[in-house]
Amino acid sequence: MSDPLKKPALFRRACLIGIGLIGSSLARAIRAHGLAETLVCHSAADGSKETAQKLGIVDEVYADPAEAVRGCDLVILATPIGANAALVEQFGPALEAGAIVTDVGSVKMAVVRDVSPFLPDAVHFVPGHPIAGTEHSGPEAGFAELFQNRWCILTPPTGTDPEAVTKIRTLWETIGSNVDVMEAGHHDQVLAITSHLPHLIAYTIVGTADDLEDVLKQEVIKYSASGFRDFTRIAASDPTMWRDVFLNNREAVLEVLQRFTEDLTALQRAIRWGEGETLHALFSRTRQIRRGIIEAKQAYGSGIAKFETQ
Amino acid sequence: MSDPLKKPALFRRACLIGIGLIGSSLARAIRAHGLAETLVCHSAADGSKETAQKLGIVDEVYADPAEAVRGCDLVILATPIGANAALVEQFGPALEAGAIVTDVGSVKMAVVRDVSPFLPDAVHFVPGHPIAGTEHSGPEAGFAELFQNRWCILTPPTGTDPEAVTKIRTLWETIGSNVDVMEAGHHDQVLAITSHLPHLIAYTIVGTADDLEDVLKQEVIKYSASGFRDFTRIAASDPTMWRDVFLNNREAVLEVLQRFTEDLTALQRAIRWGEGETLHALFSRTRQIRRGIIEAKQAYGSGIAKFETQ
Repeated sequence: MSDPLKKPALFRRACLIGIGLIGSSLARAIRAHGLAETLVCHSAADGSKETAQKLGIVDEVYADPAEAVRGCDLVILATPIGANAALVEQFGPALEAGAIVTDVGSVKMAVVRDVSPFLPDAVHFVPGHPIAGTEHSGPEAGFAELFQNRWCILTPPTGTDPEAVTKIRTLWETIGSNVDVMEAGHHDQVLAITSHLPHLIAYTIVGTADDLEDVLKQEVIKYSASGFRDFTRIAASDPTMWRDVFLNNREAVLEVLQRFTEDLTALQRAIRWGEGETLHALFSRTRQIRRGIIEAKQAYGSGIAKFETQ
Repeated sequence: MSDPLKKPALFRRACLIGIGLIGSSLARAIRAHGLAETLVCHSAADGSKETAQKLGIVDEVYADPAEAVRGCDLVILATPIGANAALVEQFGPALEAGAIVTDVGSVKMAVVRDVSPFLPDAVHFVPGHPIAGTEHSGPEAGFAELFQNRWCILTPPTGTDPEAVTKIRTLWETIGSNVDVMEAGHHDQVLAITSHLPHLIAYTIVGTADDLEDVLKQEVIKYSASGFRDFTRIAASDPTMWRDVFLNNREAVLEVLQRFTEDLTALQRAIRWGEGETLHALFSRTRQIRRGIIEAKQAYGSGIAKFETQ
């Protein structure tokens, strides 16, 4: 039923490639805000396909990515980034002129490298990264509010159609995100520190604990509230997504990992030689960063996180 | 006003040595549950002393530790563990026969080493460690509910008077904690993994970020919700307390740190050489530990922590 007085939706027909945590959250948010007249998705995973259909969060589900994107003016890549090249190679020729392709990947240089070669000239590519997520995976884990008050970083290559960028910005702003635009390489450097290194370390420490003899491991679980627990949540994130992140942001991750390892070695030495002043100086300095984050309203000063240290 | 029908308090006169986050929380909890007829404290820090008086969470505040413990049947050490030896040396001779001394330190072997030599024979020592805390410090940061549904580990040396252990157990259970008893060395090994290593790593990564050039550092703060933020909270914990933990649990921390470093190096190598299967296998394995923690009810499956990864 078309209402002549109703403002047209931002997109006529939008397609999600992948319907996991992020894809299904986007589907719900796009629906909730009426951002697409028709919303379809491609899902290769049989289970996810059926779940997406059952959940009723899209109008149509396609097993074939080329069929899925046909006639769409918006295509959102929401699969682990390692799958991008093969997918875009398949559906690229089916894209219509003027369509906008965007993505939600945690690495941006590799996405530009993998996706651009397979896009027709008349298609606009606006890479994006919503800094949002949970440790849960799959279409049932999604929720429409996931992106509210979160950053979304767009990294359009030089020469990208400004109108296409504006439309993608509007999409994210409408569903509650704050949008920043930066260069892809810079994004990858910043995220290597704020996200990729923390995840790598969390995966490592939880793996170290998992290798303990069984009795000790049970105790680690029992007393996990003393700090360890926070790491386990991060280390429960999607394995495929994170494998692809590390394989595709290799240089930036290795660079920051090298810095981290040097710093850890210095601390290790200070502990071994009983250098209390070195430890105290660092531990005082790190408090400042926390204050900066609280001032930037990126954390709660107290409250929900109250019970989780020591 | 003494009521002849009223059950006597568990302790006649209790003394807190130190009135920071843990000490002041204990003071509030002891008061709330009527566990001591009179509650006093020693505070060396002028600011804390005045705050404790102003807050009215104890009956009397003493600058001299020996005066503070005089006539007490319970003395609770709640200062950073590096301060223990000097304090107990001061107040030890003033302890009355039959008094129970306990503590709240995050390391237990070093506490036994530092405290025991200064205690008169007729005094009972029951070392303890409540696994509770926040990243905030000082008497104003405390609250009576801090210990509810948290573990408290007691590590009484062989031969400790069972009645003294029972009284300390009752104290913690009354204020809502679950009590476990184990050997001090074992405690230190378990906590090195669940608490000390996570804190050391969090301090390190936040320090690494703090060393970045200023523009990048501002962006790390801005986008901290992508994983880094969780580390900053841990790395905002009390510097003196944590310096003392690392200096006093050196062997156990260095041992587990060595394991962690080996594991991190293996991951680094896998990233460098593009070994996706190695990464995926580890990232899948670590999910299991999280499930174990959720089953052990030490974490929320979803909910408040929902918005904090990727």
